[in-house]
Amino acid sequence: MFRTIRLMLRCEPKASLEARSSADHKLRRPMRDLTRDHSLLSLNTATVRKQGDLLAIVEACARHGVRAVSPWRDQVAAVGLDRAGRAIKDAGLALSGYCRGGMFPADAAHAQEARDDNRRAVDEAAALGAPCLVLVVGGLPQFSRPGSASSKDLAAAHAQVEDGIGALVEYARAAEMPLAIEPLHPMYAADRACVNTLKHALDLCDRLDPERDGWLGVALDVYHVWWDPELSAQIARCGAKRMLAYHVCDWLVPTRDLLLDRGMMGDGVIDLSRIRGEVEAAGFTGFVEVEIFSNDWWSRPIDEVIETCIARLKTVV
Amino acid sequence: MFRTIRLMLRCEPKASLEARSSADHKLRRPMRDLTRDHSLLSLNTATVRKQGDLLAIVEACARHGVRAVSPWRDQVAAVGLDRAGRAIKDAGLALSGYCRGGMFPADAAHAQEARDDNRRAVDEAAALGAPCLVLVVGGLPQFSRPGSASSKDLAAAHAQVEDGIGALVEYARAAEMPLAIEPLHPMYAADRACVNTLKHALDLCDRLDPERDGWLGVALDVYHVWWDPELSAQIARCGAKRMLAYHVCDWLVPTRDLLLDRGMMGDGVIDLSRIRGEVEAAGFTGFVEVEIFSNDWWSRPIDEVIETCIARLKTVV
Repeated sequence: MFRTIRLMLRCEPKASLEARSSADHKLRRPMRDLTRDHSLLSLNTATVRKQGDLLAIVEACARHGVRAVSPWRDQVAAVGLDRAGRAIKDAGLALSGYCRGGMFPADAAHAQEARDDNRRAVDEAAALGAPCLVLVVGGLPQFSRPGSASSKDLAAAHAQVEDGIGALVEYARAAEMPLAIEPLHPMYAADRACVNTLKHALDLCDRLDPERDGWLGVALDVYHVWWDPELSAQIARCGAKRMLAYHVCDWLVPTRDLLLDRGMMGDGVIDLSRIRGEVEAAGFTGFVEVEIFSNDWWSRPIDEVIETCIARLKTVV
Repeated sequence: MFRTIRLMLRCEPKASLEARSSADHKLRRPMRDLTRDHSLLSLNTATVRKQGDLLAIVEACARHGVRAVSPWRDQVAAVGLDRAGRAIKDAGLALSGYCRGGMFPADAAHAQEARDDNRRAVDEAAALGAPCLVLVVGGLPQFSRPGSASSKDLAAAHAQVEDGIGALVEYARAAEMPLAIEPLHPMYAADRACVNTLKHALDLCDRLDPERDGWLGVALDVYHVWWDPELSAQIARCGAKRMLAYHVCDWLVPTRDLLLDRGMMGDGVIDLSRIRGEVEAAGFTGFVEVEIFSNDWWSRPIDEVIETCIARLKTVV
């Protein structure tokens, strides 16, 4: 533990600011300089989920001076909530989010399960001191809550998502736990999330939290939204109040698997620097969270993965 | 040939109309009744591209009383343009489109190639008597026109697409060949088409053809757009003047391959009847074109594939 703390002290906590090098004059705020250290890096623990349990991941993060993580519920459950919380705290790590609640669409027989499960997720996020609970809202009910009756009614799923978030945000407000709706790529509309654009997520936020009181916002992952011609406008609309988390990885060409072939930053086609510039121009000041689901990166040693994340954060993000 | 013509006569050419069974009162036009015959079916020839050349496909269509096809350029080139045209005409087949032009983004060294190639596509479509040339607009230049310098600038690709269509529509107007922009699923944004929503395609149409003079519209394929929460509104905006082609297949869960795992109608999650109802309510009166890229369906006998298309058209489309 002393070694962990000592190593972490090497890492400068505050990233300095410098003017954005790009010629985009629309941006009013300078981009943060990520080239000097990795104090703004957070590691989504799914990125190395095959290499070890949450305790091993926390230890590896501390070893490399990573200052924050975003853990998944199943990884927390596998070691126990208390033990996970202590390990994160002892390592001096912050959280950039907690993954994940959601999966709202369900038939009547599974509605209670969806509600209870989401409340537990809020409670766990609060126990861990997460800044937000990320919501992957679910697709059609048979995939969102297995066992539910099959449906092709996407509009009904949209309505169930809206109702589900509307009910959960009351609970989250009481627990003082912000909810971050994550729009997922349209290729996941059926089985993972039927909210697939930042615009749709922000429309939900505006309808369910018109006061913008801080308990409802979005988690923006470049993988899901980079293709959207309305992305820049919607990021500007989003603003700091709604932007609760920012995730990076890359889109590979070709993509060989719909779920498990995300790329390391710099290996794909996403203009990461441009998007981060817009996100920060909108007022975002949080961690830059790396989340990569990849059979390729899961097959590599954890130290190599983390070192690569750090190097790419400094050069291409 | 006599056998072909005789078989085709079994097929009633005019689909009767009946009131839409759904309770969607917003629709002002009755849906066409597809249950009695398959006179409105068109087969996109890529659906059976592995089973035989274009001549074999045309013969199989005639054998099954399919009244229209939408051929691909490479399949036409493989048998020769004249021979392809004669075979289609001799079999009494109509065309529902010609696939495809597009792939506009290119670096300076490949710009002429993109322009010339698209003009040839227009000429071929006119020679075959196609009702429209389908445009798959291209993604980033290195994928759209291989050999082009790499870029991550999606906004620049959007601009090149707009410029390319703007130039081509002049040529198409002179050739009296309508151009149909096909929005592709966002998972193809990098390498196939960076126009990924019906809204984006219609915005291009409105900017490049504000007079709505009939030479620019869209090809709507349910596979690419079914997930879009704005789909209904954009179909209504589209109207008969802009809706030049309508394609069906299905979205499978899980989808095992980004390109070659489309489903047969009814095997996936798309609410085909609802979407067709909206398309026809908007005034579309053309063929319902089946386009399935699938390693699964490519491995089956051509007669089985066509018989299944006919059966599903009557029951689930």
